[in-house]
Amino acid sequence: MYGASDVRIEIVPDAQLIESTDALVAVTHACICGSDLWPYKTMQHNDAGRRMGHEAVGVVEDVGADVRTLKVGDVVVMPFAFSDGTCVFCHEGLHTSCIHGGFFGTTEVAGAQAEAVRVPQADGTLFVLPVGRDDALMPSLLTLSDVMGTGHHAAVAAKVGPRKSVAVVGDGAVGLCGVIAARRLGAEQIIIMGRHPDRVALAKEFGATHVVTERGEEAIERVRELTGGFGVHSVLECVGLEQSMLTAVEIARAGGAVGRVGVPQDETMPASQTAFFSNVTVSGGPAPVRAYIEELLPDVLEGRIEPGRVFDQVVRLEEVPDGYRAMDEREAIKVMVEP
Amino acid sequence: MYGASDVRIEIVPDAQLIESTDALVAVTHACICGSDLWPYKTMQHNDAGRRMGHEAVGVVEDVGADVRTLKVGDVVVMPFAFSDGTCVFCHEGLHTSCIHGGFFGTTEVAGAQAEAVRVPQADGTLFVLPVGRDDALMPSLLTLSDVMGTGHHAAVAAKVGPRKSVAVVGDGAVGLCGVIAARRLGAEQIIIMGRHPDRVALAKEFGATHVVTERGEEAIERVRELTGGFGVHSVLECVGLEQSMLTAVEIARAGGAVGRVGVPQDETMPASQTAFFSNVTVSGGPAPVRAYIEELLPDVLEGRIEPGRVFDQVVRLEEVPDGYRAMDEREAIKVMVEP
Repeated sequence: MYGASDVRIEIVPDAQLIESTDALVAVTHACICGSDLWPYKTMQHNDAGRRMGHEAVGVVEDVGADVRTLKVGDVVVMPFAFSDGTCVFCHEGLHTSCIHGGFFGTTEVAGAQAEAVRVPQADGTLFVLPVGRDDALMPSLLTLSDVMGTGHHAAVAAKVGPRKSVAVVGDGAVGLCGVIAARRLGAEQIIIMGRHPDRVALAKEFGATHVVTERGEEAIERVRELTGGFGVHSVLECVGLEQSMLTAVEIARAGGAVGRVGVPQDETMPASQTAFFSNVTVSGGPAPVRAYIEELLPDVLEGRIEPGRVFDQVVRLEEVPDGYRAMDEREAIKVMVEP
Repeated sequence: MYGASDVRIEIVPDAQLIESTDALVAVTHACICGSDLWPYKTMQHNDAGRRMGHEAVGVVEDVGADVRTLKVGDVVVMPFAFSDGTCVFCHEGLHTSCIHGGFFGTTEVAGAQAEAVRVPQADGTLFVLPVGRDDALMPSLLTLSDVMGTGHHAAVAAKVGPRKSVAVVGDGAVGLCGVIAARRLGAEQIIIMGRHPDRVALAKEFGATHVVTERGEEAIERVRELTGGFGVHSVLECVGLEQSMLTAVEIARAGGAVGRVGVPQDETMPASQTAFFSNVTVSGGPAPVRAYIEELLPDVLEGRIEPGRVFDQVVRLEEVPDGYRAMDEREAIKVMVEP
């Protein structure tokens, strides 16, 4: 990506090992993330460009001398952040704050919308999957690299649990995975807030019990009506805009929690006083998806959850620019890339 | 209080029962709260005035026909919020959000800087103390009406626990009680952030292990130095200003929590993105002190904690205006009122 709306497919030198703890992964499945749309809308032109993509499943092609747990041929899922797996934060399950960690698709570390990707801290980062490279579950397994783990993180941060009422702000792929996560954690009432018929329909299949298509004040009123006037115990904020955060706090029940995973676009948070006076907790951030794979994987492998259904369009590598356009224009919920 | 810096002692009609669930309490001990200083600084002149005070210990003088658990002569502590004790929020321990609740010292419900106070929802609100009206522990028991429960709430919201590192932003009476609470909950490192020598000295007696007198960027650097570069697990925000909240978020460790009890003076919260990217939880609000009395009372009665030491000045009712002045000018940490 060279700037807003300027995505190009280029032949670049092959990815290769740099550190002895690296692995080289041939990408079999990647995708475009809702968060990729922020630079797609706003990035200043940059001659060096940025190699995009932070979600991938692939096959290990080569490993550095110090890699111990991976071998060539392993089918792996690559979380959107790399992490050493051994530092104090990784031990606490917060791999996104790893002392030796970082993120894919940045100016420092190339991305996964590519034929191959270099993976730093490979032992700590990659998770070996017990399936072949062409397994039918690949779309769902791919979501463990970001979107399903992120929806789960929102639900955990929002303290979803049995008998809880939940609202999901945002009907993008993360919001839809938030619905899956809320149901999986036992929520009783799950309100999806969105207005795209295809997405709302999928949310209902994933377990949403109510749909709120209104916005702003009307949406807040509607959620209160659905919850005896109190608001919901748990709000999953999956957008990141001022308005969505405001809504999230306003629809939270006193003593409830907002789990936010939409990257905040503003330096200040709205409704600070509202949150304070009703003792609403605001939590969340970049999801430590690496920590969640172990928990979520069995449910994917045994078909209890099907997050891969958020992919409603598949493109080849050369079609990636059109994939960005399709997601930006809300033509597609989420686009999978098969290099 | 008729306006900023305008506190008057006046003879008003005696407090009396209005609802059948009310009790009338003769105030033996009250006090001035840090939060009373906000209107003392900023209140617009109002001809009707506001009867201040929301913290009291006293003796039950009369009860309404529907009061079941209290009798004339009971020595009671009055939390700063009244609550029915039976609604869904009271059952969840969030008495400050009671459906039939409210606050003392407002334009609707008169305050406790007075000879007597009407207590709505008396059964749910008042807590009978197992001591006589002149017990030496009265100052500490009085803190259960607000300041000690509020410091405890900050610590609970900030997830203080054994082996945790804690910073307390603000060396007022609430911050000092936050130090007591952090130590009581097993914190290993307790950093008090303040610059008043008398308060800092008391904080150390209460269990603070480190003192940071710097402010702003320097304070942030200093806390990081004291915590191996990471910041603290738990921050107790006991001020409520933009700068103190900014500091609170910046000194929190990745994955840590800020428990805020300083009433936020701004509608937006600073450092939203900082909190997000390091997965810092922001929680807290008005403390449900009624819920905490049962837990804290034995420690007061048995002398394990001495929160009453925050009172360093005692005034009679007619001296209350000077008590406000003394607290506002930082001459006193907290002023007790003995009507």
